[in-house]
Amino acid sequence: MGLSLSRRGLSIPASPIRKLVPFADEAKSRGTKVYHLNIGQPDIATPDEMWERIKKYDEKVLAYGPSNGLLEFRQGLCRYYARHGVNVSPAEIIVTTGGSEALLFAMLATCDAGDEVLVPEPFYTNYNGFAVYGDIKMVPVTAQAEDGFRLPDKAHFAEKVTPRTKAILLSNPGNPTGVVYTRAELVTVAELAREYNLYIIADEVYREFVYDGERYTSIMSLPSIDQHAVIADSISKRFSACGARIGNVVSKNRQLMDSIMKFAQARLCPPTLEQVGAIGALSVPDSYFTGVLTEYQERRDIVYNGIQQIKGAVCRPPKGAFYVIAKLPIDDGDAFAEWMLRSFSLDGATTMVAPAAGFYATPGLGRDEVRLAYVLNATELRHAMQVLAAGVKEYQATVMR
Amino acid sequence: MGLSLSRRGLSIPASPIRKLVPFADEAKSRGTKVYHLNIGQPDIATPDEMWERIKKYDEKVLAYGPSNGLLEFRQGLCRYYARHGVNVSPAEIIVTTGGSEALLFAMLATCDAGDEVLVPEPFYTNYNGFAVYGDIKMVPVTAQAEDGFRLPDKAHFAEKVTPRTKAILLSNPGNPTGVVYTRAELVTVAELAREYNLYIIADEVYREFVYDGERYTSIMSLPSIDQHAVIADSISKRFSACGARIGNVVSKNRQLMDSIMKFAQARLCPPTLEQVGAIGALSVPDSYFTGVLTEYQERRDIVYNGIQQIKGAVCRPPKGAFYVIAKLPIDDGDAFAEWMLRSFSLDGATTMVAPAAGFYATPGLGRDEVRLAYVLNATELRHAMQVLAAGVKEYQATVMR
Repeated sequence: MGLSLSRRGLSIPASPIRKLVPFADEAKSRGTKVYHLNIGQPDIATPDEMWERIKKYDEKVLAYGPSNGLLEFRQGLCRYYARHGVNVSPAEIIVTTGGSEALLFAMLATCDAGDEVLVPEPFYTNYNGFAVYGDIKMVPVTAQAEDGFRLPDKAHFAEKVTPRTKAILLSNPGNPTGVVYTRAELVTVAELAREYNLYIIADEVYREFVYDGERYTSIMSLPSIDQHAVIADSISKRFSACGARIGNVVSKNRQLMDSIMKFAQARLCPPTLEQVGAIGALSVPDSYFTGVLTEYQERRDIVYNGIQQIKGAVCRPPKGAFYVIAKLPIDDGDAFAEWMLRSFSLDGATTMVAPAAGFYATPGLGRDEVRLAYVLNATELRHAMQVLAAGVKEYQATVMR
Repeated sequence: MGLSLSRRGLSIPASPIRKLVPFADEAKSRGTKVYHLNIGQPDIATPDEMWERIKKYDEKVLAYGPSNGLLEFRQGLCRYYARHGVNVSPAEIIVTTGGSEALLFAMLATCDAGDEVLVPEPFYTNYNGFAVYGDIKMVPVTAQAEDGFRLPDKAHFAEKVTPRTKAILLSNPGNPTGVVYTRAELVTVAELAREYNLYIIADEVYREFVYDGERYTSIMSLPSIDQHAVIADSISKRFSACGARIGNVVSKNRQLMDSIMKFAQARLCPPTLEQVGAIGALSVPDSYFTGVLTEYQERRDIVYNGIQQIKGAVCRPPKGAFYVIAKLPIDDGDAFAEWMLRSFSLDGATTMVAPAAGFYATPGLGRDEVRLAYVLNATELRHAMQVLAAGVKEYQATVMR
């Protein structure tokens, strides 16, 4: 009899993106340039204010910080949220190791093993991972590519509610869809939460990335929602500081925060030095985001227009974050993504995409869809989209014929 | 009907140490100096090599690193382990966010909800916390203050094994006891693991801190243990870098590491910049540890001798880590620790201790014990022990009379 692994250790999904990495490495070792549209790693420089604060740090000992995070950082976050219509105090914030841990804590504090979380699909794959950490069940409510992945109707959510349903989890602005929910859509979610006594865990890490003059609405800016709403947040995308692993949870539900604080104490504290850097990043002027937003809006246009050049592709203009899910005229996104890396190049380059099936919980959905992250500069992105269009054509002609 | 919290969110223990913090803050605001013997935050300077590497870092973007950690860091760790008699390759290491996450991943990958882990008690409180994350049951096997908390007999472990037992978890050198297990004791653990098909999760973060010429033995240096053994490690204590949150797991069990890798992918990566610093720290010369060890050995002596001055105290000389558990002639460690902060001072100072009951899973055990962390310089520590001795006397005379 061999040693057994836990069922959860077996059932936790391997990253559908990261499993393609060896093929990308092979392509690079053959001399092929790989355009990484597969992962949300922005190329924007991390603000100088963050680097400077880190380099000026002159403590002799890199010591534990508080389990709920440095007070100065939490105070800075309060001022930041106030500018986004959310008024909270430092006690209503707990700093976490990335948005990842914010999501994990929110889920563990609201759900026991076997409890259920409703989530519009397609959704960020790692929600599945955190669910497996705690034996929580993700229950998908399917959104449609054809309408730009708007929030499914209230009735579609309601029919999935069971006595085990504890929370609704949503990403707004949306990874992987680029959807930005309207205030009316969020009011629907709030109504569901009150009617069925559910928490709303809102992943709002992309709030700065909203295009075409649309407006992002925080779940916490709605009335009569304080006991239900939890924000999972992160500086990763906002300040192009994914490697800092600094995030936070926000809630006005005191009991919930007390519970999350105990999970936080068990792991002692989030990283001290990168938290110090984050304090610096909070001081960047608004012009930083204006510049970033202009850049991303151009990129969004390049990608969206690039998709329109692919005959048979379906996609609505994404309004937020820096992702889009496109339905492509292909048979299988996983096979296509692998083929692009292993068998295709144009002008010495290929484009790496994220197969979208991994963003769906319902088997069979999203097989002809891919997610594109527009995190490269305009010139590279334009070429990446030409390469992708040529790849689709060649794939149809050789693999699908 | 109100919103419910998860049972696990309610059952996760609040930190028995951190709940005393408000009383320490009050004491400080009254002008009383508080000697922190309650927490393992060393005062030793973090090595210059770590700070320099961080300050030299000149990437423009603080980007995601690999989920399993930077290759250069894992390669450095391999050379480090080789010097400690453990030969591993970079693929047998996954970098984690602190030793905390190393323990969490090891437990989640080996245990499902309801599974059991045997652990000598008293044990590091946060083991309980990570168990609650995953609904895992900690099953204590009690060690005795009178013999310096040596490993309980094989029969004591064997009688606690059930079909749900998946692993033995131990800390060596030991937090909170200061015990250093002999090779013979570890061979016993290895026999148990093979006989009952269990994993051994060995928390070896204090390997540098061993006194009196004793030898630390890694679980992974034993023969025929490769499929069973997992090391949970951290740079926090070794390089006095608790705030870096850089740890790692090590195992030669390929399936187990594949499973842990998926947990690691879900949370993307450990902190990038502090990992870069850790690469620098790995280059410190052996003389760094010689100096540190000399310092700690002196501190150990001061604390041990200080305890001997307290009439009725019971304690064997701790051989490792920087903790000792002392049985004191008091009625209740929690009440005593609080009283020291709220009602006692000598020469304007008081001593903060960690009540030991929180380190036991068996109700009622450890009530007259406290843990002392010897992480202050010799002068302060001497005074802290005088204050403690005077405090015990006064507590007996006023509270226990």
